[in-house]
Amino acid sequence: MEVLGMHHVAFAHRDPEVLGALGELFGLEAGEAEDGPGFAERMFPVGDCYLQTLEATGAGVVERFLERRGPALHHVAFEVADVAAAVEELLAKGTRMVDERPRPGGGGTLIAFVHPSACGGLLVELVQEPTEATR
Amino acid sequence: MEVLGMHHVAFAHRDPEVLGALGELFGLEAGEAEDGPGFAERMFPVGDCYLQTLEATGAGVVERFLERRGPALHHVAFEVADVAAAVEELLAKGTRMVDERPRPGGGGTLIAFVHPSACGGLLVELVQEPTEATR
Repeated sequence: MEVLGMHHVAFAHRDPEVLGALGELFGLEAGEAEDGPGFAERMFPVGDCYLQTLEATGAGVVERFLERRGPALHHVAFEVADVAAAVEELLAKGTRMVDERPRPGGGGTLIAFVHPSACGGLLVELVQEPTEATR
Repeated sequence: MEVLGMHHVAFAHRDPEVLGALGELFGLEAGEAEDGPGFAERMFPVGDCYLQTLEATGAGVVERFLERRGPALHHVAFEVADVAAAVEELLAKGTRMVDERPRPGGGGTLIAFVHPSACGGLLVELVQEPTEATR
């Protein structure tokens, strides 16, 4: 597998103050929020990468994470050219996956999460950007 | 302040298995470890960014973080051209800082940490890469 780059880093929170602070302190501005199951996701461009904020808006994985950890960094996302091929490669190595096949992510991406037990507690998402053909 | 990009994302751990897993699963390889107070720091290039691992080797901030949180993502680091100017700007806004003046980081960088209370619990490091003059 070739990792092309760091696609984003995700921060889970409940309090919306972090969204304003990223602008006031660092000049970072997000695009429109996208709604997921129990959370609102925003992408703040940071050079060629994004800081993704995951704001809990109801029951779900973000809320459960916040109950255990409080506001905290949640995962890193590596960009790959072909997420289906990357998942096949990981499964062939016996890697424990959260997603055993790719599923749609925000912004037209295809994503799959590797189980954190496979990487010492680090939660890694693989992301494939949409191509011209799928955009 | 202009953030030039995501310099690195740091993951704190005790178990060295994560270092091998990053290579076996994702093809990521670190350079030489650098020792900090109570930890060994490694930089895994991920495109133009780094995944930094902070392995606890004794008492210190990494060990204390692990006692509270277990293995987890620790901070994000934004690259800026002039960390001293960025710190002055943040102090002028009344921002609570961990470092009120820049200090040396790994690889010849100059760094300063913003206090996580200033940004909703997100720990942000500012990093200035060495210039030709300071290298």
